[in-house]
Amino acid sequence: MRSHYQEELGHINEQLVQMSGLAATALERATRSLMDADLDLAQAVISDDAFLDALRRDVDNRAIDMLARQQPVATDLRQMVTTLRMSSDLERAGDLARHVAKLARLRYPAPALDEQLRPIFVEMSTIAIQMVRRAGEIVAASDAHGAAELMGADDTMDRLHREVFRILLDPSTSMSAQATVDATLLSRYYERFADHAVSVALRVVYLVTGVWADEQLPGAHEHFLSDVPRPHH
Amino acid sequence: MRSHYQEELGHINEQLVQMSGLAATALERATRSLMDADLDLAQAVISDDAFLDALRRDVDNRAIDMLARQQPVATDLRQMVTTLRMSSDLERAGDLARHVAKLARLRYPAPALDEQLRPIFVEMSTIAIQMVRRAGEIVAASDAHGAAELMGADDTMDRLHREVFRILLDPSTSMSAQATVDATLLSRYYERFADHAVSVALRVVYLVTGVWADEQLPGAHEHFLSDVPRPHH
Repeated sequence: MRSHYQEELGHINEQLVQMSGLAATALERATRSLMDADLDLAQAVISDDAFLDALRRDVDNRAIDMLARQQPVATDLRQMVTTLRMSSDLERAGDLARHVAKLARLRYPAPALDEQLRPIFVEMSTIAIQMVRRAGEIVAASDAHGAAELMGADDTMDRLHREVFRILLDPSTSMSAQATVDATLLSRYYERFADHAVSVALRVVYLVTGVWADEQLPGAHEHFLSDVPRPHH
Repeated sequence: MRSHYQEELGHINEQLVQMSGLAATALERATRSLMDADLDLAQAVISDDAFLDALRRDVDNRAIDMLARQQPVATDLRQMVTTLRMSSDLERAGDLARHVAKLARLRYPAPALDEQLRPIFVEMSTIAIQMVRRAGEIVAASDAHGAAELMGADDTMDRLHREVFRILLDPSTSMSAQATVDATLLSRYYERFADHAVSVALRVVYLVTGVWADEQLPGAHEHFLSDVPRPHH
């Protein structure tokens, strides 16, 4: 019985790692569709999100089934509850990648992103993709120490998010209202995507230490608007 | 034992209703702080979010404790898992209200919202506040039918969200880049707040029917960018 439990747990963890990989790939392809105004690729990202949703349902069903059949307590119970939360974070990260692709599709054949903003969004996407992949490794290794590293990367994401606003508000930046709206939404999507990666890592911390880090560690979720620069006068 | 379980369940449900009320109040006050550029009120909303966070932790601890001690199966298990998800939705709704207040604080003493956008944001806030209050009533009454009503209200929210973009992109609207960025974020916050209210209602549907409505019903979460109007040429 116990070994069946461990086997099932291993399977769930593999699926969570797989979800991290799918979320990373989704954001990588969504970013490419955005940069290249590639309609087919955007469309593929949007429809492929169904795989991540299906995987999430499967993970959740397995976790709930284990709760029902194995009646876990203590660490095992914590593991199941945490699984439900991680699958939710990773599915939501996939949704955000899909939002990026939807915006690329919506503006096609025009590029959704203003030329001036391409470098910073390349940087944001690179970091966000690395973060969610790293979150998958952290889950695989039950590596509570990895979370600190992800929080460092998240600080960089926040800095870049603020930098996007700085560029948008700079009087020398002359951008259409639509480009401004789109860049604001996109920046928010990348920033939230990274938050979910951090959240997954913090749940591993909880699993290993029993401490609800996501509500205690500063800066994990609440940072993005606290110092948007004031306008230039 | 069983009656203790029912009592504890009743207590958890009361707390979820209380969370809905707190989220509604938070958005009501945040909106007022935004409209009146009221720094003290914005500050109060931001700090009072801690009550909602604490309540969420208490609800989660109770639910996890019940999972551990009562070893529920079938409907009772579903109830506990759903409780964890509803508390997460309501806490997140509170976060979004706090984001509105943070933006009001950030722009103080200037009003964060352009004059032209006040009526539509009043309307969005009114609907969003009603929605989360209604979600609380739906939880209290285990009213699976109430969800359809909330989804109707959510369609109105989506229409208003698109209308905000239409106004921002109208060439006759002359707004600063900062006003455009701020309105984009604010509109997204209200729209997401409403999504969480719908999500709570859909979880009640799941509880009553066993069907995961939130992934099957169209339009519950994915709508907001699908037809942002193209710019006027």
